[in-house]
Amino acid sequence: MPSVSPRALFALNLRRLRLATGLSQEALAERAGLHRTYVSSIERGERNVSLDNIFRLAEALAADPRDLLAPERKAGSK
Amino acid sequence: MPSVSPRALFALNLRRLRLATGLSQEALAERAGLHRTYVSSIERGERNVSLDNIFRLAEALAADPRDLLAPERKAGSK
Repeated sequence: MPSVSPRALFALNLRRLRLATGLSQEALAERAGLHRTYVSSIERGERNVSLDNIFRLAEALAADPRDLLAPERKAGSK
Repeated sequence: MPSVSPRALFALNLRRLRLATGLSQEALAERAGLHRTYVSSIERGERNVSLDNIFRLAEALAADPRDLLAPERKAGSK
């Protein structure tokens, strides 16, 4: 069982990947064709994001959609 | 851009992983706490599956949720 919920895990991964690209939530939202407040609520772990939006967000981040489901990283690990 | 839609890709991966476990759609649905007709429609690529259900299906298959988003396999490749 995951130590965090799927929504919390997705939130962490989205935030990590977004910050790595240097995009603001607003810029990411615009690229992905989503609303800024929706992206914000995803990053707070409040949303049960759908498959289509997972792929939209990944494309906007130039990331593999699977990276948004990556397991939680332990502190100190790479 | 993917050559198939996210929903079609998910459908292919779900079916492949389910058949690899030897589970029927009905048995998978029961394990995942979902309805048999819902699993069936996912495998027809008709559903915009949510994050929570992606993780439920993966757990029922003892698979990594990321495997359900794996890119399409070319015929003849491993």
